[in-house]
Parts: sequence; C-alpha cells; structure tokens
Amino acid sequence: MIDVRAGETYGGRVQIRIGFDLSFEVPQPVPMQLMLYVHPDQAGLLRQPERLVMEPVHPVEDFLDWFGNRAARILAPAGHLRIRYDNVISDSGRPDVPIEGLRLTPVHEMPPECWRYLFASRYCEVDRMVHVAWDLFGKTPETWERVQAVLDWVHGNVAFGYQFARPTKTAFDVYTERQGVCRDFQHLAITFLRALNIPARYVTGYLGDIGVPPAPNPMDFSAWAEAYVGDAWRVIDARHNHPRIGRVLMARGRDAVDVALTTSFGSTNLTEFSVWTEEIPG
Amino acid sequence: MIDVRAGETYGGRVQIRIGFDLSFEVPQPVPMQLMLYVHPDQAGLLRQPERLVMEPVHPVEDFLDWFGNRAARILAPAGHLRIRYDNVISDSGRPDVPIEGLRLTPVHEMPPECWRYLFASRYCEVDRMVHVAWDLFGKTPETWERVQAVLDWVHGNVAFGYQFARPTKTAFDVYTERQGVCRDFQHLAITFLRALNIPARYVTGYLGDIGVPPAPNPMDFSAWAEAYVGDAWRVIDARHNHPRIGRVLMARGRDAVDVALTTSFGSTNLTEFSVWTEEIPG
Amino acid sequence: MIDVRAGETYGGRVQIRIGFDLSFEVPQPVPMQLMLYVHPDQAGLLRQPERLVMEPVHPVEDFLDWFGNRAARILAPAGHLRIRYDNVISDSGRPDVPIEGLRLTPVHEMPPECWRYLFASRYCEVDRMVHVAWDLFGKTPETWERVQAVLDWVHGNVAFGYQFARPTKTAFDVYTERQGVCRDFQHLAITFLRALNIPARYVTGYLGDIGVPPAPNPMDFSAWAEAYVGDAWRVIDARHNHPRIGRVLMARGRDAVDVALTTSFGSTNLTEFSVWTEEIPG
Amino acid sequence: MIDVRAGETYGGRVQIRIGFDLSFEVPQPVPMQLMLYVHPDQAGLLRQPERLVMEPVHPVEDFLDWFGNRAARILAPAGHLRIRYDNVISDSGRPDVPIEGLRLTPVHEMPPECWRYLFASRYCEVDRMVHVAWDLFGKTPETWERVQAVLDWVHGNVAFGYQFARPTKTAFDVYTERQGVCRDFQHLAITFLRALNIPARYVTGYLGDIGVPPAPNPMDFSAWAEAYVGDAWRVIDARHNHPRIGRVLMARGRDAVDVALTTSFGSTNLTEFSVWTEEIPG
Repeated sequence: MIDVRAGETYGGRVQIRIGFDLSFEVPQPVPMQLMLYVHPDQAGLLRQPERLVMEPVHPVEDFLDWFGNRAARILAPAGHLRIRYDNVISDSGRPDVPIEGLRLTPVHEMPPECWRYLFASRYCEVDRMVHVAWDLFGKTPETWERVQAVLDWVHGNVAFGYQFARPTKTAFDVYTERQGVCRDFQHLAITFLRALNIPARYVTGYLGDIGVPPAPNPMDFSAWAEAYVGDAWRVIDARHNHPRIGRVLMARGRDAVDVALTTSFGSTNLTEFSVWTEEIPG
Repeated sequence: MIDVRAGETYGGRVQIRIGFDLSFEVPQPVPMQLMLYVHPDQAGLLRQPERLVMEPVHPVEDFLDWFGNRAARILAPAGHLRIRYDNVISDSGRPDVPIEGLRLTPVHEMPPECWRYLFASRYCEVDRMVHVAWDLFGKTPETWERVQAVLDWVHGNVAFGYQFARPTKTAFDVYTERQGVCRDFQHLAITFLRALNIPARYVTGYLGDIGVPPAPNPMDFSAWAEAYVGDAWRVIDARHNHPRIGRVLMARGRDAVDVALTTSFGSTNLTEFSVWTEEIPG
Repeated sequence: MIDVRAGETYGGRVQIRIGFDLSFEVPQPVPMQLMLYVHPDQAGLLRQPERLVMEPVHPVEDFLDWFGNRAARILAPAGHLRIRYDNVISDSGRPDVPIEGLRLTPVHEMPPECWRYLFASRYCEVDRMVHVAWDLFGKTPETWERVQAVLDWVHGNVAFGYQFARPTKTAFDVYTERQGVCRDFQHLAITFLRALNIPARYVTGYLGDIGVPPAPNPMDFSAWAEAYVGDAWRVIDARHNHPRIGRVLMARGRDAVDVALTTSFGSTNLTEFSVWTEEIPG
Repeated sequence: MIDVRAGETYGGRVQIRIGFDLSFEVPQPVPMQLMLYVHPDQAGLLRQPERLVMEPVHPVEDFLDWFGNRAARILAPAGHLRIRYDNVISDSGRPDVPIEGLRLTPVHEMPPECWRYLFASRYCEVDRMVHVAWDLFGKTPETWERVQAVLDWVHGNVAFGYQFARPTKTAFDVYTERQGVCRDFQHLAITFLRALNIPARYVTGYLGDIGVPPAPNPMDFSAWAEAYVGDAWRVIDARHNHPRIGRVLMARGRDAVDVALTTSFGSTNLTEFSVWTEEIPG
C-alpha cells in the first residue's frame, strides 16, 4: 500500500466510496438543516447525482447557504427517521502539502470577502486571544512558517480524545484545557490565525484512512480548515498536521456553528450513525 | 414639539441631518474596515451622494459585504487621520410600532436565508441560553407577544450605563451582570429570540432624539435589532423599548462583530469623536 | 427491606461497612493530599481506628485542615501506589428530613463563622448568579421552603450523567448546560443558596443504597451539602432530593476544590477504583 | 527626599498616618462585614487603639476570621452611614526586597497550612491556567527567579487603568484582556504561582507614596500579595514590581473575595470615599 506519510505518492487519481447512514428518533415534527452533500466545488467529481434517501420518504428542500454550501432542509416527521447517502468520488491523489516560504497576504491586499474570516465567531473568540497569539507566534516569519508554527503548536499541545467533546467548547476552552476532538483542534488554530491577521475558515468533510494506517475508531466525519496564504486558500489540519489525500469537502463556514452536519430546531435523538470512506481498489 | 412617546405622531416626512467627525492617531499604516455609510436600503432617501471625507486625502475602496451592507476599506497612513461625513435624509416620520397578535413564522416556513439568524455568534451564545430562554418565555403566546416579553424583560432587568461597556462582553455576561450599553441590550434580546427559534439580527445606525426629550449624553451612534415575525423583518429595540421615529440604518449583521463602525487590523487610537442626528425644522 | 423513600423508617441503628481500594500509577514522586478519612464529627462511631493501608508501605502525615477535616499527606513514590481502607460505622438509621416552616436565620444573627459560606468560591460564582437566584426564588417564603425550592429546581432541571463531568465545570456552567454529576448538582444549589444569603457548604462522603433500590452504576463516593437554616446546619442533597439514611461524612468545604478526595501536585493516573458502602445485616 | 526606587534607603523607622472616611447610603437595614482594621500582625505598631467611628453611633461586633484577620460586622441602619478611622503606625523603613537565589520550598516540605494557598479560588482559576503557567515559566530556575519571572511578566504585559475594574473579573480574564487594577495584577500573579506549586495569598492594605514620587490619582487602598519561598512568606507586588516601604497590612485571604474591605448582604451605595497614608515628617 502507498504510505503518504512516508513520502510515497499516488501515481494518479483515486476512487473513493463515500456515504453515511443516520437514524434519528423524532418526538414531534421538527425542522432540520442538513449539510450532508458534497460541496459544489467537488460535486463535479461524483460518479452519480447526489441524493439523500429518506425513510419515510419525505420532501427535501435544497438551497445554497451564504457560504456557497449546498444544504437541505426538511420538516422531520415524528417517529423514526433514517437518512442515507452513497456515492463514489474521484480524488486527485495529490496530498495537501505545506508550501514553505509562501508569503502571507497583507490584509489590505486581500479580496474583501476574505475579511469576514478574520473576525471572531461563536467558537473562535479572536478578541480574547489576540495577546496570546502574538506572544506565541509574533516572532515567526511572515510566511507559511507562521501558519505552520500555529499548526505545530496546536498539534503538539492538545491531546485528542472523543470523551473531551462538548457542544459549548470554544477555542479559548481548548487553549486552557488542552484536550479535544478534531473540531476543537481546528477552532484553536483558526482563532490563532485570525488573531495574526491570517484569514481562516472551518471545513467539514469526509477524510478516510487513505495512504495512512487505519485508525482504531469507527469512521466519522472529519473537520479541517483553510487558511488564506499566498493569495489563495490552502488546506490546513491541526488535528493530523501531516499531508493527506482524499479530503472530500462538504461545507465551509466561520466555525462549527455554520456547518453542523445536522441542526435541529427542537428535540431529536441520533440513534444510529455510520460513515464510510474507502478507497476502491483498481 | 411632537412627543412620540406620548402617542402623538408626525403628520409627514421629517428631514434629518446626519453625520460624524472622527479622528484617529495611527502609529503605523494599518488596514481599516469602515461601516460608516447609510445602508443601501435607505440610501435612496439621502439628499446628496455619500462621501467619506478623509484628511489627509486617501483612497477609499467601497464594497458590499455579504450581509448587503455598504462598507469601505482603507490602508490608513501613519499619523493623524480624520474622517468626516455629512448628509440629510428624509424619514417617513412613522414610528416603529409593535404589532400585537402577529403570528411567529414557523421555522420551516421561513425563507432559508432567515435561518442564519437563528444560529449562535460571537456575542450571542444561543447554545448556552436555550434553557434560560424557554424557562423565562416558554409560556408566552406564539405571537408578537413573545417578542415583546423578551424586550420587556431585557429592558426591565438591565441597567444602562456607559461605564459598563467592554469589548468582550457577551449576551451571557449581560444576563448575569444586568448592566450594559445599547449593544448589550440588543445582544441579550437577540440571543433569547434565537433560542426561541425567532430569527434576530443586529443593526447599527443613527438614532437622534426626534419626538422624544433630548438625552443628557453627547450624541452617539446607536444599535437596535430586527426580528423576523409575521413573515417579515421588524424593528425591535430592547434599549428604548418604545416606538421611535428617525432610525437611519447603517448596517446589519449577526452581532456587533459584523458591523463595527470601524475595525482596525492593528493599533489605532480614536482621539476625537462627534456624531450628529438632528431634525431640520420646517 | 425497609424503603425509606416510601416513608418507612428504620427502627434503630444500622451498621454500615465502608471502604475503598484505589490504585495509581505515579511517574515520578509527587506530593498528594488525601481526604479519605471519616470526618472527626462521625469518627467516634467507627468500629476500628482509621488506617490508610499503603502499598508500598509509606509514611502518612495526618493533619486537620482549616475546615476541621482530617486529612493526610504523602510524598507518593514513583511506581504503583495502592491505598486501601476498610471499616464499619454505626449509623443512627434516621433519615435527613426537611423541616417545613423552619425560619431562615437572618445574616446578622448568624455566628460569624457562617459568613464564609456566603461568599463566592471557585466553582460557585455567587457574584454572577445573584440576579438569577432572586428572579427564581425571591418570592418564596423566608423559611425552609426557600431551600426546598432551590433543591426542587436543581433536581428538576439538571439531568444526571457521568459523561457530563469535567474538572473545570462551575455552577454557572451547570445552570446553562443543565447536565452534570452529583458534584454539579450541589454546586448549583450552593450557589443559589449563598446568593439568597443562606450559608451553604459542600460535603463529600459515602452514601450507599440503604433503604433505597440499588443504583445501576458501580458504587462511588458521593457529594451532598449543608445549609444553615433555623440556627443549625442541615443536610441537603439536590442530586437525590429525597430523605436518605446512611450518610457517612468525610469532609466539608466551600466547594469541591477544598475537599477533593485526592489532590496531586504533579502527574498521577488513577488505574483502579472501588468503593463499598453496605448495610451489615442483623 | 529619600527615593527608594533609586536604591536609597531610610535610616530608620518611619511614622505613617493612616485612615479613611467612608459614607454610604443604606436603603434598608443591611448586614455588613468590614475588614478595615490593621492586621493583628502589625497592630502592635499602632500609636492608638483601633476604633471604627460610626455615624450614627452603632454597635460593632469584632471577630477574627479564619485567616486570622480582624474583622467587624454591623447591621447597618437605613439612611446615611459614615465610617471613619485615623491612626499612626510605625513602619520599619525597610523596603521589601527580592531575594535572589532563594530556594522554592518543595510542596511536601511546606507546613500543611500552606497548601490551602495552592488551590483554586473564585478569582484564581488555577485549574484553567496550569498549562499556560508551565508554558511560560516552566524553564525558569526553581528559586526566587521563578517568582520574579511571574511578577515581571504580569507587570510587563498588563496595562493599569481604573476604568478596567469590574467585580466579576478573574485572573483568566486579566490574562486575555491584559488590563486591570492592582487587584487584577495580583490575581493573575497568584494564579500563575499556585499553578507552579508556589503558595500565594492575596493581601489588602495601605500603601502610600513613601519614598516614591506621588501618584496622580487620589489615594486608595491597595492590594499586593505574598508568596511562600525559602520556607517563609514574602511580600510580592505585580502591580508595582519594585521595592516599596510603608506597606500597612489589613487582611490576607485566598483572593479578593475573602478580604473585601466592605461586604454588604444587600444593597448599599458608597457615596464618599477618602483614604490617607502619609509619612509624618520628623
């Protein structure tokens, strides 16, 4: 098997099977927002049209949110609700790589639409972390190395564990508790970057163990991030902090608030959950 | 003089002179975002084209942000910077009035673009205030009365004082400290409303003492809010909680992060500040 | 079996076997504080002298802390450390009962040493909860009913679950998240009570399932509290909110900071943990 | 005039006049705790017996709190309340000096009563600052230099300003906002020290401008701290971070909660306030 982490590279495109199977108990009808599609930027690489299969059959209203994500909304009926999806996507096989020496774009040279990703958001209290960020990273060069220093710090100082997840956890909490899940790693890195005047946004998607040893945990959706460096958005990932292939983008936003996979405006219970992301051999 | 608070109403349109004069000391060149224009929704009512007069003369780049606000950005030069604006706007003379009995729009009937104003944001920790909101307001009718109950509660339980302002203050802080400036009143009301599944957004603008006794403090910009009720956005104001005329809209956003009048990506000192909003007699 | 919750009462004293068996991995020598003895107020009811059995054998220095608790301290050696304790205590068999109509002692009539239990502490942010407490409970009578209203509110509004525990969780967090373990229930109740000028202190001890149906979870130490009402300290328990017998007191303090069962000034890992609290038949 | 900051020293004892004059409006009778005496450790140096002069004349009950401070309590009557105090104390004339190279006492060698000053308290969230403290100071030597590094960091990174005071502000807030009054400087330093296993306690007292240029602000009470180093408690002061003479100790505690100069269990308004601390010439 190719080992991306050892520097080996795929010779060409990779076919990845992606999908999920979610079940909910819904005590009474409740509106839900679903961000469960592949992002329009990558949807052209899918083998089949996208479809959320609902049981019971139920109308789904699609819309583009203001970040450009494809979202859906439903009025979930009371009772058991199952949502499934299955597809195959063609991935470039190229790992995201850090680009040493790349210049940080000065704030006044960025397109205005980058600025929104410099501001504070629910889980990224930029205003409270400015001093800390400059204390830690103010002496790094004004290049990709500053971004890398942030990623290295977060990766090196925060311990991963599913038991550390909680819905109200912010970047600030992660900074003091030094524990979290992938969402928490990204929130802290994003907050540091914004405080350093580097636009950063939060991303959700599929990230399978392709080209890396399989993880012991059941497959889950993943979170990573993007930073605006050298006049373009670049993938970053404080959780793994290592080049990966096979990132399938679902949604981008300011932080996890904007791109929750499902948001219920009322009570629902997730009763079953499985996700798959597997390389299709051949 | 007409006294709006006593139920008297203006017979027709009112001409209002608006403007400001701001001075900054800028230690070294710094990018700034300025949200100092009248909002496009009301700009058609201005007597003259809008212009930010800069001293020294300096290029200004205008853009529309993703909320539809007209914003400007500059690379402020080192030294003294002065920004002035003066204009006259024609106001309807009609006060914003509560609409008793108006139905709350169910979440699944709202246009999708309302949903973004149901989510948590930096200063509006909806996720932490859900239980409190339902404890306090869960038994009110599903009409405008629920909105009014929120406004009455915030207005009646929070004390106003300029000394209570601080940049990191959130809705949650306001709820426990019960003190704040107009921004804080609105953040708390917005957070309660979102927790109750009523979209709410934050607004900045001019609000002069028109039809009300003059306030003792020097004139300042103001903040109010909008709630989506009865299939439309309605003005709300937990700070004054009384019908007013002459609200001149500048910008809308999720909370104060999005619509700060000036945002500096580096150090600046505001050295002088005056704002005017006066009815032009005749 | 006697069922205390059904109103049945024990005819007389009950013998309870208590003890624990704890194991730690200690990477390098670390000072530890142990609050693992029965409190001096109840130690006279023990069948045998108290002894912490250490493996390896290790000197233990006992002391009384400033709350009057009996504590021990050790310099834990590197390697495996095991601490055991086993004893039998004679309990009155009388449940703690609410005392309806009992007058709240006015602040200026309390002994000065009660006042320390009116102040804020690490996990009990009284200063931030004063307004909330008076909103919720200000109209209750100035008797035991006010205490009972606090206990009922906390018991009824907070969901119990071991997965909700975290070391930094404060009363304020519990109030907004509405989830927690027994420590969290008590912290919130204590904070409300202090805000209402009722002294309240935090208690740790053994609480077995005596006279109540056995709980499904493995036995653990428990936390409850005491409130100063009617000129005396009274047992309260927002977690169970029902009369119980067989509370074996270990330590009292302002909150969980003061009475942690073990506190390590450096790194240790708890590897095994069992606690027993069983009625001895006959 | 002797200038202590320039290294000049007083040849001998200094006589200092101390006192205050406080007025309150009291809407209805309210219990108050007053920590307005000189601490028993220094009371032997006073020229006259201590007396709180109350207008109207009112009974005062003195007591020692559990930290060993002399406190008073009253049931303040409704109406105007004035409390005055005036005295002269003899000061050693010796500045508090850092003691380079002094060994930090290992935790297990300290007397047990030091340990209470290692724990978290309301305004000193040690549990949330452990990682930050070790990041910043973990490489300093295990001597007085570690304490000095903490004082230098706090002194150098926090800006002083009366407008930055607020009652709920914690060490954690100071760390992120980098602004505060003397209380805030000490809370942050104390929290870092405890996180580093160095006992630290909070102190209030008189600190006049003796041997230093007069400050521009009206005289106020002051706060400093004490750290346990080299087997004894030593004065530290992150606010001034320079040797001073003439510290008149009033009260010690875990943080500002324990030693508030006045605590009201109900509503009172401070209407007038003056404090004096002057060297008596000759």
